[in-house]
Amino acid sequence: MENAVIRARVIGAGGFGGANIIELLTAHPQAEVVSLVDVQGVGKPISDSHRHLKGACDLPVSAPDDAAWDGSVDVAFTATPDGVGMRLAAECLACGARMIDYSGDFRFNDAESYAAYAMRIGRDPAHASADLLPKSVYGVTELHRDDIASAAVVGNPGCFAVSAILGAAPAVREKLIDPATLICDAKTGVSGAGIKPAQTFHYPLRYENMNAYKIAAHQHNFEIERELSGLAGTDVQVTLTTQVVPLCRGIMTTVYGQLADSATSAEQLYEAYAEFYRGANFVRVEPQGTPTSNNDVRGSNLCILSVNVDPRTGRMIVVSHIDNLMKGQAGSALQNMNVMFGLDETVGLSRPAFYP
Amino acid sequence: MENAVIRARVIGAGGFGGANIIELLTAHPQAEVVSLVDVQGVGKPISDSHRHLKGACDLPVSAPDDAAWDGSVDVAFTATPDGVGMRLAAECLACGARMIDYSGDFRFNDAESYAAYAMRIGRDPAHASADLLPKSVYGVTELHRDDIASAAVVGNPGCFAVSAILGAAPAVREKLIDPATLICDAKTGVSGAGIKPAQTFHYPLRYENMNAYKIAAHQHNFEIERELSGLAGTDVQVTLTTQVVPLCRGIMTTVYGQLADSATSAEQLYEAYAEFYRGANFVRVEPQGTPTSNNDVRGSNLCILSVNVDPRTGRMIVVSHIDNLMKGQAGSALQNMNVMFGLDETVGLSRPAFYP
Amino acid sequence: MENAVIRARVIGAGGFGGANIIELLTAHPQAEVVSLVDVQGVGKPISDSHRHLKGACDLPVSAPDDAAWDGSVDVAFTATPDGVGMRLAAECLACGARMIDYSGDFRFNDAESYAAYAMRIGRDPAHASADLLPKSVYGVTELHRDDIASAAVVGNPGCFAVSAILGAAPAVREKLIDPATLICDAKTGVSGAGIKPAQTFHYPLRYENMNAYKIAAHQHNFEIERELSGLAGTDVQVTLTTQVVPLCRGIMTTVYGQLADSATSAEQLYEAYAEFYRGANFVRVEPQGTPTSNNDVRGSNLCILSVNVDPRTGRMIVVSHIDNLMKGQAGSALQNMNVMFGLDETVGLSRPAFYP
Amino acid sequence: MENAVIRARVIGAGGFGGANIIELLTAHPQAEVVSLVDVQGVGKPISDSHRHLKGACDLPVSAPDDAAWDGSVDVAFTATPDGVGMRLAAECLACGARMIDYSGDFRFNDAESYAAYAMRIGRDPAHASADLLPKSVYGVTELHRDDIASAAVVGNPGCFAVSAILGAAPAVREKLIDPATLICDAKTGVSGAGIKPAQTFHYPLRYENMNAYKIAAHQHNFEIERELSGLAGTDVQVTLTTQVVPLCRGIMTTVYGQLADSATSAEQLYEAYAEFYRGANFVRVEPQGTPTSNNDVRGSNLCILSVNVDPRTGRMIVVSHIDNLMKGQAGSALQNMNVMFGLDETVGLSRPAFYP
Repeated sequence: MENAVIRARVIGAGGFGGANIIELLTAHPQAEVVSLVDVQGVGKPISDSHRHLKGACDLPVSAPDDAAWDGSVDVAFTATPDGVGMRLAAECLACGARMIDYSGDFRFNDAESYAAYAMRIGRDPAHASADLLPKSVYGVTELHRDDIASAAVVGNPGCFAVSAILGAAPAVREKLIDPATLICDAKTGVSGAGIKPAQTFHYPLRYENMNAYKIAAHQHNFEIERELSGLAGTDVQVTLTTQVVPLCRGIMTTVYGQLADSATSAEQLYEAYAEFYRGANFVRVEPQGTPTSNNDVRGSNLCILSVNVDPRTGRMIVVSHIDNLMKGQAGSALQNMNVMFGLDETVGLSRPAFYP
Repeated sequence: MENAVIRARVIGAGGFGGANIIELLTAHPQAEVVSLVDVQGVGKPISDSHRHLKGACDLPVSAPDDAAWDGSVDVAFTATPDGVGMRLAAECLACGARMIDYSGDFRFNDAESYAAYAMRIGRDPAHASADLLPKSVYGVTELHRDDIASAAVVGNPGCFAVSAILGAAPAVREKLIDPATLICDAKTGVSGAGIKPAQTFHYPLRYENMNAYKIAAHQHNFEIERELSGLAGTDVQVTLTTQVVPLCRGIMTTVYGQLADSATSAEQLYEAYAEFYRGANFVRVEPQGTPTSNNDVRGSNLCILSVNVDPRTGRMIVVSHIDNLMKGQAGSALQNMNVMFGLDETVGLSRPAFYP
Repeated sequence: MENAVIRARVIGAGGFGGANIIELLTAHPQAEVVSLVDVQGVGKPISDSHRHLKGACDLPVSAPDDAAWDGSVDVAFTATPDGVGMRLAAECLACGARMIDYSGDFRFNDAESYAAYAMRIGRDPAHASADLLPKSVYGVTELHRDDIASAAVVGNPGCFAVSAILGAAPAVREKLIDPATLICDAKTGVSGAGIKPAQTFHYPLRYENMNAYKIAAHQHNFEIERELSGLAGTDVQVTLTTQVVPLCRGIMTTVYGQLADSATSAEQLYEAYAEFYRGANFVRVEPQGTPTSNNDVRGSNLCILSVNVDPRTGRMIVVSHIDNLMKGQAGSALQNMNVMFGLDETVGLSRPAFYP
Repeated sequence: MENAVIRARVIGAGGFGGANIIELLTAHPQAEVVSLVDVQGVGKPISDSHRHLKGACDLPVSAPDDAAWDGSVDVAFTATPDGVGMRLAAECLACGARMIDYSGDFRFNDAESYAAYAMRIGRDPAHASADLLPKSVYGVTELHRDDIASAAVVGNPGCFAVSAILGAAPAVREKLIDPATLICDAKTGVSGAGIKPAQTFHYPLRYENMNAYKIAAHQHNFEIERELSGLAGTDVQVTLTTQVVPLCRGIMTTVYGQLADSATSAEQLYEAYAEFYRGANFVRVEPQGTPTSNNDVRGSNLCILSVNVDPRTGRMIVVSHIDNLMKGQAGSALQNMNVMFGLDETVGLSRPAFYP
């Protein structure tokens, strides 16, 4: 794949997730956006919807029915809600394209797991392409790089899930904590809710506001538990609290767990994390006492982990920072595309955080 | 005290805590600000520093040395950092005034507890007025109303502490949770850091930013543990994580604890909280599923508690909302003053949240 | 009207303008909210929509058809879009109530002026209650206090209009500027757009954003010109540029005009403004060099005017600050109610700006 | 200069202007940061101060005295306050480097003009390198591209100046407006004030705030008038009002001018602007009715001009949008570097606006 250009279709081009992958692909030296699909803005340049793309990408938006699967596409990004990707996958794959899906449609590899997830979010438990589930791979690149390389379909992870899984994985796999005590307290910016206006995200009601929502009921909990259970080698249940704070981009998840050995020091925990992520291009581990913040990741594909111990209570406190639209969505998607097509995973993703 | 007017001095008038108590006292039908003290802005009207007070309070600011304790004051609010209140208390009390101190100086009732706290924050462990410590009362009104009524000195509680203590108290006292599992994940607005500019609160570096700080090391942890230990009847240790989010006013503390009986339902937990706070004017308990947010408390003296259970993991999740400058500081101070002087605790505190 | 209670109905209770007048009336010592009307939230307490009112006002919302005009109301606030107040006015007045309307329905006193306005905003130029137009008074209290006192209907002014008119009035009436050169560059917070979500006010698209809109075409221009023409004694045309900046509450209008006598000093201009507003409770005039800002008015009913001269170019530069929801809407409405019912105009409006 | 690498020194690396040019240079295919200078953070990696640069640029910061001018540098960016660049320029040039200075030091080409500017801002009117003034070129690339190409020193323009000059230039040069009527009403984000904390930019006092400052007295007025006078062929005086609104990045300047021929239509004005900027890579002209906003330029090097006419008053209203840290500072600086070194001016500057 050295010099060929990867031809990409973006479905759901009109949302934030679509806008971001378009922007990343446009700047990517070995990829090209060849087709845009959405139900809104059909027939108009995408830069009418996302004006910042004017001059960078002015392709017209096609209606779903007008976007044929005819071999003109190498990869399709379905930046769409649950239920869309699963209906398109078979045709897409049949025409030689691979798929990276943003929703929960392909985050589970068997019909039963999917059904449990689907019921939680009030959807039909029957998957429309259940036969493809075993061919899909969960898209936390750091954990499944090899499988992603050959995957037909990647189920791009949920934004909260990325931050929680990367924050907890080393401690869970190395059995440094009691996995039954895992709590993930997650704070997200508003862009995670998408581009569609709603009263709770109306500027006058959101500035200076913060709140928890879907308490003990967020759908990302499933994939977190599935991944951590795999790493732990045992069934893990997690309390995930999702909260919205008044900023646009960023997730900060504070991960708590009771240390298996209460004498574990912050240095030891840091070493385990650093070792786990050695060579990871997009995960940076920082020891206790080193300041970290959303400013360090905003606009970049980084995940920064601040690794701490509270020796009095024998707890691990890991603060996991990502940009929900990058490592939490389009950035991970592009990273996965790079891996799928044999490129260095960092191509097109080296931009530092947006500052100030 | 029916119709008399309470004459108040505010020391530290130039900060946010000073500004807010001045504003509350100015609107209070039975109180009057008679004296303002600060080290900055001396000789000028306070409304030069806090321009919004122009017309409402234009008293000049006196230097500390020029503010005699001569019987002209009934209550002194020391809206000052640690170490100031303790040096003024003896003289203040000798002249017949009572004191409400915003710092940690009078949050502990014996020299030993104070010393432990002082060492944590890098101060001299010897208290300058150790003999007064037994006469001081911790100012979470809901827990110590009777003692506050007769207290010479009230140690007004820390903002994080108010939110955490009110959020955990019923569960701890009623032994509904294992107190060894208590975690308080607290998010605060920036005003909690005070009026003094600093790089980390500089607008371009704070908008869109969030971070944890003083991980496993925040000084409010002491008073939280002291109060909850008292309620539990046993020694309680708490993990407190303090985090700053980009808003001005508000604290949201999510309190986690393992249920003593994992079959405890959300309804049962709610009932226990509702019962605990029955009659409390400024604490509102909401059941699982009822939305709550910072908008509901901002600018008011309310604490709103959303009481939830995660049945899968057997955990309590209580979300505690306050305005850090009101219930977390000046509002609690005024509530305490009302109690100390025999007034209804709600006088001057009935303003609903600032909206939108 | 000394001790009687003014019984108020709020129509359009579910919007920001409704919420604010409810809150002001609830705290007003001589007024009472007796009836709430809206098309949404019917049958539920208003505090379900505006949660901050819980405990302060829990009256149920009535549907428009269920709110009879039966003598139980002394004043109706129609916090509604154009076209609603004019359809209710006749019945309202017939039952002995007076009306304060937030829209453009009663800002003009003759059918012709109304028609010009209506066409500009794309509405039917025929007024539904044209006979009442001569009985209505334009509600900039500072300019029409006497007429407001006896008015049956008050056309509460537009938010931009209040700031521009108060900012330009002294210079225009005293002929200190050439009225043909008047430019009003207005910046507003987002709450001026109301409670209904829209993409342009969606938090992720509004934070860090600013833009001009309705350039040379904002409907408030009409009332500004009408009022200033009246003061000037000649026909005045104004360029008004309306712009949205990322804050919730506040309007800052910078008013430019060529000085009639280019030798007019900043001091002379200031004196003229100070004289014009002598005795005005809610207008504060500040001389060149004194800092003013939105912080000084936010949450209060104040209008603050910074009066400046650019001697090099011979221009007046007046910066006019108001809170768009207070002096720009509900605050002016209450001020007008006070005047209409013979009360001191400041009753219930003495709250200083919300700080910080 | 085809394939050679431009070796750059950044002086004042610790500020926002330094951070941004470092970031741009790091991503530039034909430039390399070889030396960083500041008075703070000496001896430490620049990524200690600007953490987002970690991994992208970790060069140590040198003290000014330790940064020899020895031929190792091709271009020096002095991202420093007034007075620094003028003291370094002679030595810098003597060693074969060229200079791009962010301050007012080299925005004027003769000692007399500089003296007038210097007195306005309270500095010594004598320029420390007056002999170099004739060799400096004012760095609005669109107006002085040819001179910049061969300039020894470029005086990078002030942020307000860029937005105002680009907004007014076509109308002034084509004599479409009476230049004596020019008013520039400018609104800036907070980052324009730099990285140093101050009370007026402290988050709790800046959120929800807006204010005008240096009314009729901003130092950028000089360069605006100098440039527009040159274009007009006559002496032009401008009223510039600078205002701060609560956002980080962005300037929106609304430019008013009385049309020379009041019958000039919006279309005609648009055509003149479009013609003036034909071929300009970083200026986009939009006709009346096309929405524009800060979102369209934030993070990019674009200037977007919305060109409007108010036919009733015969006025031009041009809304000029830039990112103050890009086209208003580091972006223009890099654009100028590209021109000075014979590169396409867009190299390293093609990033679209940061969205959302």
